[in-house]
Amino acid sequence: MKQKIIDPWGSGLLEDYEKIIKDFGLEIFDSKLFPQPNRIMRRNVVFAGRDLKIIADAIKHRKEYYVLSGIMPSNEKIHFGTKMVVENIKYFQEHGAQTYILVADLEAASTRGVTLEEARKRALDFHIPAYVALGLDVKKTVFYFQSENKEVMNNAYEFAKKITLNEFEAIYGSADPGKIMAAMTQVADILYPQFKERMPGIIPVGVDQDPHIRLTRDIVRRFKERKFFLPAGLYHKYTPSLDGDIKMSKSKPESCIELPEDIKSVKRKIKNALSGGRDTLNEHRKLGAVIEKDMIFELMKQHIVEDDNELNKIYRNYKSGEMTSGELKEIASSMMEEFMNNFTRNIGQARKHIDKLNFVKFK
Amino acid sequence: MKQKIIDPWGSGLLEDYEKIIKDFGLEIFDSKLFPQPNRIMRRNVVFAGRDLKIIADAIKHRKEYYVLSGIMPSNEKIHFGTKMVVENIKYFQEHGAQTYILVADLEAASTRGVTLEEARKRALDFHIPAYVALGLDVKKTVFYFQSENKEVMNNAYEFAKKITLNEFEAIYGSADPGKIMAAMTQVADILYPQFKERMPGIIPVGVDQDPHIRLTRDIVRRFKERKFFLPAGLYHKYTPSLDGDIKMSKSKPESCIELPEDIKSVKRKIKNALSGGRDTLNEHRKLGAVIEKDMIFELMKQHIVEDDNELNKIYRNYKSGEMTSGELKEIASSMMEEFMNNFTRNIGQARKHIDKLNFVKFK
Repeated sequence: MKQKIIDPWGSGLLEDYEKIIKDFGLEIFDSKLFPQPNRIMRRNVVFAGRDLKIIADAIKHRKEYYVLSGIMPSNEKIHFGTKMVVENIKYFQEHGAQTYILVADLEAASTRGVTLEEARKRALDFHIPAYVALGLDVKKTVFYFQSENKEVMNNAYEFAKKITLNEFEAIYGSADPGKIMAAMTQVADILYPQFKERMPGIIPVGVDQDPHIRLTRDIVRRFKERKFFLPAGLYHKYTPSLDGDIKMSKSKPESCIELPEDIKSVKRKIKNALSGGRDTLNEHRKLGAVIEKDMIFELMKQHIVEDDNELNKIYRNYKSGEMTSGELKEIASSMMEEFMNNFTRNIGQARKHIDKLNFVKFK
Repeated sequence: MKQKIIDPWGSGLLEDYEKIIKDFGLEIFDSKLFPQPNRIMRRNVVFAGRDLKIIADAIKHRKEYYVLSGIMPSNEKIHFGTKMVVENIKYFQEHGAQTYILVADLEAASTRGVTLEEARKRALDFHIPAYVALGLDVKKTVFYFQSENKEVMNNAYEFAKKITLNEFEAIYGSADPGKIMAAMTQVADILYPQFKERMPGIIPVGVDQDPHIRLTRDIVRRFKERKFFLPAGLYHKYTPSLDGDIKMSKSKPESCIELPEDIKSVKRKIKNALSGGRDTLNEHRKLGAVIEKDMIFELMKQHIVEDDNELNKIYRNYKSGEMTSGELKEIASSMMEEFMNNFTRNIGQARKHIDKLNFVKFK
């Protein structure tokens, strides 16, 4: 079992993810399921799913299916988790999926108190351009704002009848009016592409977002007469905090890199990150790095080094002690600088063409 | 205190209403507050309110204000409580109020599982025509469906952020996802006429609907930057069950008259209703009726006899024993027959002109 989700470069966090798979009844992700798996699929950063065979089948037989994700415009930045979601969307988009990106402005209002106007502004000014900068094909992507999508809102009310407060609390751990309204609306978002025509769909998320998928699947099962397909889920691991914690979080700013972020600050954080290097150079040369503990290697594996051969080479050199932790961090810093520069430039480009995106026109 | 809400014809339910006034901090209704009070105001069937002076002031000084109510299209009939709401709306409409009637189709969906389509059909086919039949001036009334009113839905999400689950449960006694969504949407409905222009408004309701008004007032207070006026409330008593219980309810069909209802069945129910007549005719002539116990007299007072002098005459004759319970019931039956005939005919008329009503056009 452990071997199945282990990856060649180690993550040091295996047991947590095994527990998640078991607790929530997920399928273990096998990258052989999909053709030309992307970087995070190949490296088992994508580690679990629900109903993935249905999606694999749709890809194989060129059936209609969709991929969908939401933008939560409550922050001014995105994080590596968002980047992985976009990479997975891009993957399915390139493999025949109809692509939907919604702006969760109602969720921002009901759970964070962000006004709809402010949420709209942030989404147009930053989040949507950032998604485009990360590689979405805008010609093939349909965008909408929750607050404009009457059908989504209407369905949220119909779905709400299908679940009790206790059930909601069991799924989410807690409940309040704003959270409930946001969650019911997410269910409607997830099913929105099926309103006109029933078809399978996949929702790529960080595993902490699984409650939305479980809620949606529960409601689909209870609303048999609507004949929705159960949405499939695809789950990626967290990008670990630079100090070794399971998840990068803004609550520890020195261990968290945001997108975009000033490159000086990124370099400083990389420099101070938890390393797998040994205490002395002699020791390092002799014993090699403890790669499972190295957060910068993990970052490179998840996000920076695209080519598997290149990553393997770094892995071997670092593991053997030939490459020092300082050298590894130098490479990471330089690649990150290039990434941030590209990202910022691409956001600027995308922002210029924001009015040409394919927004759903509502009556 | 007791004298203040007592009416000349007695209700036998005074203490309950006194307790409600005290528990919920209502104002005792004084019919002298408003010009030309209607039948249920004059007879203290309307017994309490919130912020009524602001409305009296708006009437007096011809300021802008509004009256609003919702149609819940989950049933096939309405009841006497609805009739009172419409009578109060009509009163304010005749005294300068902008008038809004919304169809709570989202509430029907989220709390009763009625589809939006079915709710729409019922509202157009019966509820709206019934409201018109009860005397609304359609030229001066604005109608809308919740499910079409994006602004109402959007605001419901913003309002949801302002209240916790505990607070919700404290107001409503319980909570579930459908109820929460319906309640937040009602808050938005109640404030909808103020979205464009802030002004006072009054919501006439049965006292069991006060939670919606309390929730709205709480949210207005917490959302100071929106500068809404606190909505005023106007509360009427229940029409008692024909067997003497505090409220007519479909759960006891033989003690409940619906609108409309077949006149034969109405007459049978009147005949079997709890009476204030004495056991023998001799006794009745000698002691007179116990009017406080007479549910048919109460029904006549609340709904059937428009003219105060006529009611007073019936009261005196019945109280003195000159009129028997049978005679009273005969009069009631005959007046009820006339009412039901008019009501049914007027619904038919109104139904023909449903497309000419003033529905809000949404973008």
